[in-house]
Amino acid sequence: MTRPEAVTAARVLTYHAGRLTGREDAVAVEEPLELRVQDGDGSVTLAVTMRTPGHDRELVLGWLHAEGLLEAVTRLSVLRDTPNVVLIRGDPERLRAGARSGVTSAACGVCGSGSVERLSVWAAPPVWTAEPLAPEVLLGLPGRLRAAQPGFAATGGLHAAGLFTPAGDRLAAFEDVGRHNAVDKLVGWALERGQLPLTDRVLVTSSRAGFEIVQKAALAGIPVVLTVGAPSSLAVETATALNLTLIGFARADHFNVYAGAERLQP
Amino acid sequence: MTRPEAVTAARVLTYHAGRLTGREDAVAVEEPLELRVQDGDGSVTLAVTMRTPGHDRELVLGWLHAEGLLEAVTRLSVLRDTPNVVLIRGDPERLRAGARSGVTSAACGVCGSGSVERLSVWAAPPVWTAEPLAPEVLLGLPGRLRAAQPGFAATGGLHAAGLFTPAGDRLAAFEDVGRHNAVDKLVGWALERGQLPLTDRVLVTSSRAGFEIVQKAALAGIPVVLTVGAPSSLAVETATALNLTLIGFARADHFNVYAGAERLQP
Repeated sequence: MTRPEAVTAARVLTYHAGRLTGREDAVAVEEPLELRVQDGDGSVTLAVTMRTPGHDRELVLGWLHAEGLLEAVTRLSVLRDTPNVVLIRGDPERLRAGARSGVTSAACGVCGSGSVERLSVWAAPPVWTAEPLAPEVLLGLPGRLRAAQPGFAATGGLHAAGLFTPAGDRLAAFEDVGRHNAVDKLVGWALERGQLPLTDRVLVTSSRAGFEIVQKAALAGIPVVLTVGAPSSLAVETATALNLTLIGFARADHFNVYAGAERLQP
Repeated sequence: MTRPEAVTAARVLTYHAGRLTGREDAVAVEEPLELRVQDGDGSVTLAVTMRTPGHDRELVLGWLHAEGLLEAVTRLSVLRDTPNVVLIRGDPERLRAGARSGVTSAACGVCGSGSVERLSVWAAPPVWTAEPLAPEVLLGLPGRLRAAQPGFAATGGLHAAGLFTPAGDRLAAFEDVGRHNAVDKLVGWALERGQLPLTDRVLVTSSRAGFEIVQKAALAGIPVVLTVGAPSSLAVETATALNLTLIGFARADHFNVYAGAERLQP
């Protein structure tokens, strides 16, 4: 689901074995996206995020959901004439109040929590409604996500998030320069299809697992998070507190379970 | 320069060759840091960022500098009783106005730019005052940064930023779960020593190079940025526009130059 505009050409000089050689290279596209909210006859900036173009509607939906602002929105418009702007209609007061304390970025998810105390997660523990997970299926997930990462294959500079069934079937995957954006796009995609909460789904990301990745999964009702990279201490604590299964360092022959091992087949 | 609190123990179950085995693991510490600004007798929250504890003063100084808010600050206090709070004294009006449109996070640097137009970099092109760089020195920099990454060695979950001389000597290095935080800590460290602009220094990061990394380097006057990971399109464009040297995919035997190759020895 990576559009052509996710990758662009760049001229590069490679230094190797004592000399510089020029060639064409591919780099991941990073561009700002402005979220504007309609207010009377005009509009005001709600947030600016750096992202990889494509699936902007899903990105904004997923972000608004994670920020708790989706209920204040009545309509989203991706403007064709100005491709880096999404216009939001809804309750301008509530949206602006929410955004005033919470501005997004390529990896911004707890922005605007306002105080350390309020960082505590407000999501309810997700409910796992499927059979216990087969470890053999989990071992295959990083490879199945990689197969949906053409942008990463071309550039080495894009993260990805994928949604999988307990049998290991990939339902969707999105790439972005921002690891949190990739998850937002995925949740926005599911939101548009009325699929939340994603109680029998596995979130797979190419990145490390920080607090915000676990938080976004919990808010989407996803009980199992598997990441290729390392988890942080707060990600482990949050997953434990919310009864999420958190798997890190996932490879083809091994993985580490940091929380919620009871959802795996014994 | 990684303090003990950058790494903590976690209980992990490793799945390998058909079975789960329990063991102690080390994970990178991620904790929220609240920036509060003194206003009259009280204080209000300016921003909350997720970061790895340690060098909070440098982190906040570097962040304030990148946000253009440092001139409005008269004093920073790291509160010993509440280790996750930094109290800022200065011009509350200006700080709050700046922070209202710019809230930081583990990887947040263009937050609050307000509109896409204003994302254009306001930094002046850095001036390179040293001799042309020897490629052999550049090849050694990732390894020399790695030697200052005990937290990464233990957890695989921490980014790092280091400051080097043209001869390849490491002046400082900082680790953090957030790649932008690591750069902020480094710039804050140099700020405290009155070393800005860092005209004859090389910034080395373990991460990819996004727009914000290049922007932070430019604002600190650093003319050469070398990253282990991939650059984004906007990072290349920004480096080209600001006449920065941008090197990506840096390894022990090769690297790619995306902008400013004229600073290298022919």
